[in-house]
Amino acid sequence: MSADQRSTAMAGVSAGQQAREQELVNRVLASFAHAGDARLRDVMQALTRHLHAFLREVRLTEDEWRHAITFLTEAGDITDDKRQEFILLSDVLGASMQMITINNEAYANATEATVVGPFFVEGSPRIPLGGDIGAGAAGEPCWVEGTVTDTDGKPVPGARIEVWEADEDGFYDVQYPGDRTAARAHLFTDDQGEYRLWGLTPTPYPIPHDGPVGRLLEAAGRSPMRASHLHFMVSADGKRTLVTHIFVRGDELLTRDAVFGVRDSLVRDFEQQPAGTPTPDGRDLGDRTWSRVRFDIVLAPAGA
Amino acid sequence: MSADQRSTAMAGVSAGQQAREQELVNRVLASFAHAGDARLRDVMQALTRHLHAFLREVRLTEDEWRHAITFLTEAGDITDDKRQEFILLSDVLGASMQMITINNEAYANATEATVVGPFFVEGSPRIPLGGDIGAGAAGEPCWVEGTVTDTDGKPVPGARIEVWEADEDGFYDVQYPGDRTAARAHLFTDDQGEYRLWGLTPTPYPIPHDGPVGRLLEAAGRSPMRASHLHFMVSADGKRTLVTHIFVRGDELLTRDAVFGVRDSLVRDFEQQPAGTPTPDGRDLGDRTWSRVRFDIVLAPAGA
Repeated sequence: MSADQRSTAMAGVSAGQQAREQELVNRVLASFAHAGDARLRDVMQALTRHLHAFLREVRLTEDEWRHAITFLTEAGDITDDKRQEFILLSDVLGASMQMITINNEAYANATEATVVGPFFVEGSPRIPLGGDIGAGAAGEPCWVEGTVTDTDGKPVPGARIEVWEADEDGFYDVQYPGDRTAARAHLFTDDQGEYRLWGLTPTPYPIPHDGPVGRLLEAAGRSPMRASHLHFMVSADGKRTLVTHIFVRGDELLTRDAVFGVRDSLVRDFEQQPAGTPTPDGRDLGDRTWSRVRFDIVLAPAGA
Repeated sequence: MSADQRSTAMAGVSAGQQAREQELVNRVLASFAHAGDARLRDVMQALTRHLHAFLREVRLTEDEWRHAITFLTEAGDITDDKRQEFILLSDVLGASMQMITINNEAYANATEATVVGPFFVEGSPRIPLGGDIGAGAAGEPCWVEGTVTDTDGKPVPGARIEVWEADEDGFYDVQYPGDRTAARAHLFTDDQGEYRLWGLTPTPYPIPHDGPVGRLLEAAGRSPMRASHLHFMVSADGKRTLVTHIFVRGDELLTRDAVFGVRDSLVRDFEQQPAGTPTPDGRDLGDRTWSRVRFDIVLAPAGA
């Protein structure tokens, strides 16, 4: 709906009716005026203004209101300690990515952030430089290497790099039955700020779509698929912690990622290697194909 | 926050950053552009615009976003077939009342609508004219009488009137243990459009406030109390169904009802009667005090 159509929609509402609606908004705003915490007051008053502006603009019907209540109730029903439908909802509305965008303003040449997603877990195993994060997860081996520097190009030794990803069937380890850890690890950069590891070539997968968020996507004609990606979280003393992914150049899903996580600057060439191609570290992969990718990471200063 | 302060807040954000944020909004809007249902498309696009405008205006932090996810998760946890935290949330944000206001535009002298609340139940017992809705619920007897007319003052015979209310302890029957029905009934107007019944003098009570909505109210310095009221739902052929309450003149909570349900036009005089005052229908109330109230109801035409 264009701005013109919107003003037309509200123009169909009488001045008296608009005044009644605005009077109610003012009462709700006033109810939050005395919150002890000024930030809570400001956030709740802004929420009130934008929520009521939405309801008034679309002229929400009682049936639609009941649908919204049912949607939230069903989201609550399916949410448990392994499934978070409210984060999925935030994701598919672009709210998660907007929050990341707001809180990670572009800084010089620093690597851009994207959504953390629901599958990060604290306490991943540590691997040595050149180690394998797979731990038996199915997928094509992928050699990942790069440097961590500051925005002046100075290497950052001892930076902690967390890497995690889905297996070739589209599942993270936390989605496996039982408590297995796989395709998830951390390592530290060496004295030159360099890192290298074996992961899996990323493959596309759907966000969980058997709940109300999946039904919303279906009704909207949207795909639940995420573009193929490999997650990184990089932290170092005095640096802004970076949570990001790299994506696979050529993936047809890059332009319609279900959670709007793709940034052009994060798309990388994953170079396919025929079976038998010698590996960088001499690992024998037998008759398997593999891929390699370079991801040089630039960290902004803390507080930037 | 005033409009000036808001534009100042966004003015602190660089043009480049604003462009990145808007580009994301545009991608989310585009994702809903092909919804098969045009209304769904319009509603989801409007939700996207207002949601992102809110996030950008308040510069929502990651901690605050996590708080919001936790809030919704806890609302889901406490919601079951007897407790509806999402409706309470809608209520305390004034969204329920705004939805009622939007869908029940003022029409001539028709009685105004207000929120239905979470305690209406289908299948209430029928009582005769002059009957008692109490069924043993504790409280001071209250004689309620009036007429149902159309906006030209013509009586509406056979109008169905549903009446329900809390007992003097602030509980509706559905909040009692077990399946008792009390303080809830329906009856029909007579040939002159008149009705009369015995109910209970309304008393104030809190909305359920042992969940996340209650904690939000507490943090905001708001009371969970509802102004004393008696619920009505009035329906008749060819008339717009009216869902409303009447409130008690003099109640100190009229100006700070937790769900913003009060309208001046719905405040009534509940006249207190000393013990021993003869009742309108000759009922013997012994040494009990009682009250009486008149509520003349005017129905708008259907489709108004």
